[in-house]
Amino acid sequence: MQKPLILVSNDDGITAKGIRTLVHEMQQLGDVIVVAPDSPQSGMGHAITMDSPLRVAEVDLFGETKAYQVNGTPVDCVKIALDKLVPRKPDLMVSGINHGSNASINVIYSGTMSAAVEAAIDDMPAIGFSLCDYAHDAVFDHARKYVTLLAKETLKNGLPKGVLLNVNIPKTGTEIKGIKVCRQANAHWDESFLKREDPFRRTYYWMKGDFVNPDKGTDTDEWALSNGFVSVVPTQFDLTAHTAISIINTWTLEE
Amino acid sequence: MQKPLILVSNDDGITAKGIRTLVHEMQQLGDVIVVAPDSPQSGMGHAITMDSPLRVAEVDLFGETKAYQVNGTPVDCVKIALDKLVPRKPDLMVSGINHGSNASINVIYSGTMSAAVEAAIDDMPAIGFSLCDYAHDAVFDHARKYVTLLAKETLKNGLPKGVLLNVNIPKTGTEIKGIKVCRQANAHWDESFLKREDPFRRTYYWMKGDFVNPDKGTDTDEWALSNGFVSVVPTQFDLTAHTAISIINTWTLEE
Repeated sequence: MQKPLILVSNDDGITAKGIRTLVHEMQQLGDVIVVAPDSPQSGMGHAITMDSPLRVAEVDLFGETKAYQVNGTPVDCVKIALDKLVPRKPDLMVSGINHGSNASINVIYSGTMSAAVEAAIDDMPAIGFSLCDYAHDAVFDHARKYVTLLAKETLKNGLPKGVLLNVNIPKTGTEIKGIKVCRQANAHWDESFLKREDPFRRTYYWMKGDFVNPDKGTDTDEWALSNGFVSVVPTQFDLTAHTAISIINTWTLEE
Repeated sequence: MQKPLILVSNDDGITAKGIRTLVHEMQQLGDVIVVAPDSPQSGMGHAITMDSPLRVAEVDLFGETKAYQVNGTPVDCVKIALDKLVPRKPDLMVSGINHGSNASINVIYSGTMSAAVEAAIDDMPAIGFSLCDYAHDAVFDHARKYVTLLAKETLKNGLPKGVLLNVNIPKTGTEIKGIKVCRQANAHWDESFLKREDPFRRTYYWMKGDFVNPDKGTDTDEWALSNGFVSVVPTQFDLTAHTAISIINTWTLEE
């Protein structure tokens, strides 16, 4: 039987520790191809590069595994991989392991998740993996078995059409109790930009925010992570608020 | 009675024709403040600027209306506006009018829509407006009455928590039959990157794609637009595929 083909990307860049861990685990499950940004792309969301050309360079970072770095966003990487670099349609696309949480509203800012979303739009099973530790030298060893288990189950069962997985893993040192399938917590970032002056006395701002989670549900990803579980949120790119359609239809929409 | 405060942004940049049209219409409805990118930001999705500082410059483009340009993404503009530039929480946030469709899957790549999503995350009624015409000198006059009608209805009725509107308007010359509340069509872009050589014989790629819509539903935004309607899709940022939770729970998730 042909081994599954697994496409790997991320948003921290192809040299990050998280993608190294992910590639290593995937090499046990199938044939792997890596297409990832040549520089950090955190917070790039679903950005694509329209106004400048993309460069692709093959790199020798993962032994026998073919790997390419791209001077673009995570979504660019998936798009050019699928059009130009993969030998056939991958059986699975995995993204990460991100350095830092992509739970709750972070899913929307995350380049890691957007790479997986792009693969799901192109109709393949996809998973974004993130570790709740922003450090560039974060320890990923405890994450390996969950990554492998969820990738295996996804290869075995497939995913419903239009659905991918957002997986977040507590940081090392947490006593992990298991895996919990959750909904996205209804949380947000409360911004407080830092205002500073440059040497020419011109003002500039640095983005800074506090994470605010008023959602007290025990079925959320944030609850799971705070209580020692790996969180798995089935995630979709149909953004329609279906239940709101009938509400808007009560409005006066005639001219 | 205090006039409503309306925050305006876009992704085509503060000098685009579309935002000029939108500001003009909003000036009839309330007090307006404009905070928009200083350069085109199409396709930026929900990207945020984390690794470089933001600059804000007041500009005199819209008469009495306060306006600021920011060297960041559409989402950056909304974040810094809400933290530093608005005198109070806006009663409405509007984004656009985008030069080009943001119907169906385009919602996910769109900076215009992401600005509106960011406002909705911050719990205010928000609308993204787009015209199905990419030309920088596109004609927006026929769009004015729909923009005004939908902004008025949103100010009057509010929107359900966690919901914003994605409004797309057919290009000028279309005989518009009215407004249709729709779901996002299940369509995607089929990429075919152009491969070229630079003067140094190094390969580069330009992103190029064909829009593919296999969704034959007559309740979609694409159907509405093709049939002469303004499409309104209630849109959410809870990406949880709620119906998939029970499916994933049938997997073997024990170690």
